Amino acid sequence: MSEPLRVAVIGAGHMGADHIQRIDRVVSGARVVAVADPDTGRAKDVVAGIDGVSVHADAMAALDAPDVQAVLIASPGPAHEEVLLAAFARDLPVLCEKPLTPDSAGALRVVEAEAGLGRRLAQVGFMRRYDAEYLRLKSLLDSGRLGRPLMLHCTHRNVSSPPGFTSVMLVNSSVSHEIDAARWLLGQELTAVTVLKPRPSSHAPEGLADPQLVLFETASGALVDVEIFVNSGFGYQVRCEAVCEGGSARIGDEHAMVVTTAEGAYEEVAQDYLVRFAQAYDQEVQAWVDATRQGRVTGPSAWDGYAAAAVAEAGVRAQESGVRTSVELAECPALYL
Amino acid sequence: MSEPLRVAVIGAGHMGADHIQRIDRVVSGARVVAVADPDTGRAKDVVAGIDGVSVHADAMAALDAPDVQAVLIASPGPAHEEVLLAAFARDLPVLCEKPLTPDSAGALRVVEAEAGLGRRLAQVGFMRRYDAEYLRLKSLLDSGRLGRPLMLHCTHRNVSSPPGFTSVMLVNSSVSHEIDAARWLLGQELTAVTVLKPRPSSHAPEGLADPQLVLFETASGALVDVEIFVNSGFGYQVRCEAVCEGGSARIGDEHAMVVTTAEGAYEEVAQDYLVRFAQAYDQEVQAWVDATRQGRVTGPSAWDGYAAAAVAEAGVRAQESGVRTSVELAECPALYL
Amino acid sequence: MSEPLRVAVIGAGHMGADHIQRIDRVVSGARVVAVADPDTGRAKDVVAGIDGVSVHADAMAALDAPDVQAVLIASPGPAHEEVLLAAFARDLPVLCEKPLTPDSAGALRVVEAEAGLGRRLAQVGFMRRYDAEYLRLKSLLDSGRLGRPLMLHCTHRNVSSPPGFTSVMLVNSSVSHEIDAARWLLGQELTAVTVLKPRPSSHAPEGLADPQLVLFETASGALVDVEIFVNSGFGYQVRCEAVCEGGSARIGDEHAMVVTTAEGAYEEVAQDYLVRFAQAYDQEVQAWVDATRQGRVTGPSAWDGYAAAAVAEAGVRAQESGVRTSVELAECPALYL
Amino acid sequence: MSEPLRVAVIGAGHMGADHIQRIDRVVSGARVVAVADPDTGRAKDVVAGIDGVSVHADAMAALDAPDVQAVLIASPGPAHEEVLLAAFARDLPVLCEKPLTPDSAGALRVVEAEAGLGRRLAQVGFMRRYDAEYLRLKSLLDSGRLGRPLMLHCTHRNVSSPPGFTSVMLVNSSVSHEIDAARWLLGQELTAVTVLKPRPSSHAPEGLADPQLVLFETASGALVDVEIFVNSGFGYQVRCEAVCEGGSARIGDEHAMVVTTAEGAYEEVAQDYLVRFAQAYDQEVQAWVDATRQGRVTGPSAWDGYAAAAVAEAGVRAQESGVRTSVELAECPALYL
Repeated sequence: MSEPLRVAVIGAGHMGADHIQRIDRVVSGARVVAVADPDTGRAKDVVAGIDGVSVHADAMAALDAPDVQAVLIASPGPAHEEVLLAAFARDLPVLCEKPLTPDSAGALRVVEAEAGLGRRLAQVGFMRRYDAEYLRLKSLLDSGRLGRPLMLHCTHRNVSSPPGFTSVMLVNSSVSHEIDAARWLLGQELTAVTVLKPRPSSHAPEGLADPQLVLFETASGALVDVEIFVNSGFGYQVRCEAVCEGGSARIGDEHAMVVTTAEGAYEEVAQDYLVRFAQAYDQEVQAWVDATRQGRVTGPSAWDGYAAAAVAEAGVRAQESGVRTSVELAECPALYL
Repeated sequence: MSEPLRVAVIGAGHMGADHIQRIDRVVSGARVVAVADPDTGRAKDVVAGIDGVSVHADAMAALDAPDVQAVLIASPGPAHEEVLLAAFARDLPVLCEKPLTPDSAGALRVVEAEAGLGRRLAQVGFMRRYDAEYLRLKSLLDSGRLGRPLMLHCTHRNVSSPPGFTSVMLVNSSVSHEIDAARWLLGQELTAVTVLKPRPSSHAPEGLADPQLVLFETASGALVDVEIFVNSGFGYQVRCEAVCEGGSARIGDEHAMVVTTAEGAYEEVAQDYLVRFAQAYDQEVQAWVDATRQGRVTGPSAWDGYAAAAVAEAGVRAQESGVRTSVELAECPALYL
Repeated sequence: MSEPLRVAVIGAGHMGADHIQRIDRVVSGARVVAVADPDTGRAKDVVAGIDGVSVHADAMAALDAPDVQAVLIASPGPAHEEVLLAAFARDLPVLCEKPLTPDSAGALRVVEAEAGLGRRLAQVGFMRRYDAEYLRLKSLLDSGRLGRPLMLHCTHRNVSSPPGFTSVMLVNSSVSHEIDAARWLLGQELTAVTVLKPRPSSHAPEGLADPQLVLFETASGALVDVEIFVNSGFGYQVRCEAVCEGGSARIGDEHAMVVTTAEGAYEEVAQDYLVRFAQAYDQEVQAWVDATRQGRVTGPSAWDGYAAAAVAEAGVRAQESGVRTSVELAECPALYL
Repeated sequence: MSEPLRVAVIGAGHMGADHIQRIDRVVSGARVVAVADPDTGRAKDVVAGIDGVSVHADAMAALDAPDVQAVLIASPGPAHEEVLLAAFARDLPVLCEKPLTPDSAGALRVVEAEAGLGRRLAQVGFMRRYDAEYLRLKSLLDSGRLGRPLMLHCTHRNVSSPPGFTSVMLVNSSVSHEIDAARWLLGQELTAVTVLKPRPSSHAPEGLADPQLVLFETASGALVDVEIFVNSGFGYQVRCEAVCEGGSARIGDEHAMVVTTAEGAYEEVAQDYLVRFAQAYDQEVQAWVDATRQGRVTGPSAWDGYAAAAVAEAGVRAQESGVRTSVELAECPALYL
């Protein structure tokens, strides 16, 4: 074991606190040395019991704390761009929680800044790429054993939506996971999107169009349909079936334990994404730490973050207009090809 | 056991021969007494070994054979309307294979003729309504236990399409089963349809748009998506997941026997609809025989046949235009309400 | 359709009434023409609405009713032997509900009587041989694709036991189904049996050793373990896993419909054997009718009934003694080889 | 993050090397500082690239290396007792791979030595207690929701056995995992054992009795049956079904991804225990490190190791004698109650 990677964490809210605990207790080879949060009291609470962490109100101060070697951004989306550019200026590798930035214009500025450096420093927090089931599906598709993919049928359900969740957020926050997963699994960009809104569930908050059916078309002519249902009431379910020329493959069913009682034979359904994807989060941060210590950047790129933002924006326009909407992407810098 | 129902079967092709065997060997309480087919040689071959069956080149002659009490129509679609109207004129109950007629105009004439009689004589051959799994799903939805249905996700796959199968037939022949199943399961009419065509599978015959994704909207604002894939290469699969306000329910997975070898744990997938739905066909004809002997008509009605035809026509227009297309239905006669 | 087979049914209790309804309404090519039951009132109620059935207090009178061509025995076990021998004397084919006779001595007399005729007339009511899942498993084992079978793991659960059910009946009534299924699936005799009794479930009636674990050894050295649990409280479950040299295969899991609610993802579990095996009963009687009309006997033989009785008797001795007990079989007459 | 726990690892073979990598790369809060192996060349290869590790030919030298705080024993079983006692003498916490010692006499000496200390220092490497599925089953049983357990049906299959694997080792090496799992899940000792040997698979090496069926009885009268099959040829499968008074629960089926091709719908089966239980191994060592750093010992105890050895010895006697054999346990020291 060589010396651990010294990480500054920006943001000590729900996700930031989770990542700080992960680096301290789960991830091997890294330690948190600085934390930034406007609410320094909250930040101090989070790092209580961890030795040698400085707390800052300002993100730049955390980046400039002694010996910082890498940055993990878990602050709200609007704060991401400034920190990313500052990390680039200091030559620091960054793991940035999704979204890369709230809109595609900001994401494109990040992409262009990194392309200007001529090498990658940023990884975006699309943790499904580290989930064991998704990895098996990706590996199967890449093997070519099932032939060319024709369709992805995706299901994304939450028990209930948090306060303030809007119809637009079903597309640009929830479905952004499927946007990245589809691009990654299929290895191609999404080119158009259509959004269909059935009559809402009576369990959805007043005014929220929930569920919705979001349809994507890809560059090579595949289709992706996504049921997004954030007030399903019955579980956190993430499923994906890839229909290919030579077969189909499905992940996401519940099968770890079958219990039979007088009520029937049943299987537990996860109720929370931190439970369902705990492993994936661990693997994501571990992979980032390992790569960073070797001077490499390997995960979802700033381009992936930009593309997700651009597709989500087209999705929101499609949701508003009710018709099929093309996705317009900037030219992809050579760095990401 | 009272005397068996005496049935005339119109058409002795693939489906007709299958129904003749069914009535002779499987169905209790009925016997075939007359068969009509322009190819009387074929018809004679089919009834060889069955006592007391007269063979006719002309459908009307079969209807007028002595003591005919009921008619089963298994001739090609364009021949259905004439036989249906003739059966109505003779007051004979009819089980008519799908489609009721090839187009909605013909179907509407049948509906109006039957409505003019003031009582039902016709049942349409939508046999999924007799399938054990569909019946369980229907019963669950009707129980209200899962609340109002919001979406149906349907999968309909064949191993390969027969010669001459066209892109239009994916919608108006294959998907017509889902059209009826959705109307029946949800208890409401379909009001609009959109058809999406991904780049075809390389295993599809030249020029065939296969697979396709067909989207229906219903009168109360539910959504129905159907993957129709007639050259999947890997099986005959019919699945349906109903997503409701209080839960979801899925039928159609393969689970009857799990075999584990060095290749993995696998389950057989049916390769043919006559295998998958053999039971449903048996139950359908048995139910029709039982009801007919009691002077009742209980199954899918001429209106159901008309509605399926009208939706399928809108589907074909949507397929051609590439945009959402409304379904226009005539007013439903009181007989069917 | 030639003339239907004219069947005398002996016994109009639960099982007899069920078979009478089956022949009248489900099975093609047969009709009930005579019924015998000491309680002729009960018998008359059962055949109300069926034309042309004579009712008798005495089984022999039913056998001698005009034009009887075949006999279905559904009376209590102790009455079987006399009717079987009488049917043999009249050259009538018989479908005899399990058990063939209550003890192996009686069963052996039936076997010897039939062997003396030089041709088979009797079929025993082991209906699992007609169940679709068992047939798939049998077909797979016979194909040799998985190699030689080494073990069968069997589960047999009921919701609750009827009044008067004894510890002995778990072995010689319930497990007799697995005795026949194991002999049939493996194609060999069972040679020894051991019975283990855990501390009973608190839901079992006072004094009933429930569940039990029954272990069989076969002629070629395979093992069969059976969990018999007649007061499971949660369902009627029949499972069988065959472990072979080249793989394993399992039938009997519940999978027809998966329902997901806030309680989890669950599947209905059958609560009754007449529900679970309705199809098998239908197929069994249909197959018997079809074979009988062609002058053939094809199903489980009197020898199968005898062997089941002999194994069950050894099982009861093993249950009493607590140690491994050998099964002693008479020499198998050439008729059954 | 406080200073990491400094661990001496005894043994640098297959399992030792795996644990060294785990502590270096996966486990947070620990580092390897000393390794002992008679083959110091092998040990040096294993620790190449890890800073600050001293390599020793002798286990005692590793224990006495500067600043060692804890010991992980992964040497062959016969070497365990000496190292355990030496660690106790030095007041060092120990994680000892299974078996605690090769026989129950040695295990009892370890138990008595630790009981003499008056506090626990040893944890035995029964890693199934850290597997997510086993934990869910344990939690369900402990909740009391299914009532008292009556039977466990266990399946334990390997693809093939390593060279030199003997019939005895199926019981005292392979089944020792089920011995511990049964004791842990049921919370009681095993009191008797019976071993049944079917005719061996033709794929088993000459002279190896494979598969076998091992039956345990527990102190409160539950039954545990274990299919152990180490040359199944088709996968590494570990299943456990708990049958309780109010329901049953089963873990170990394969369900992470369902692939459908023309060959059927299948699911991958793990081929190796390090793949299937990778997570459990990680969690086990992490839990030991975390507890040790807090001065606590929490996992499977020396008593658990002793009990497993005593049951396995009875199992081997039962295997030889062919009859039910009682398990004799020493009195349990108060330390473990």
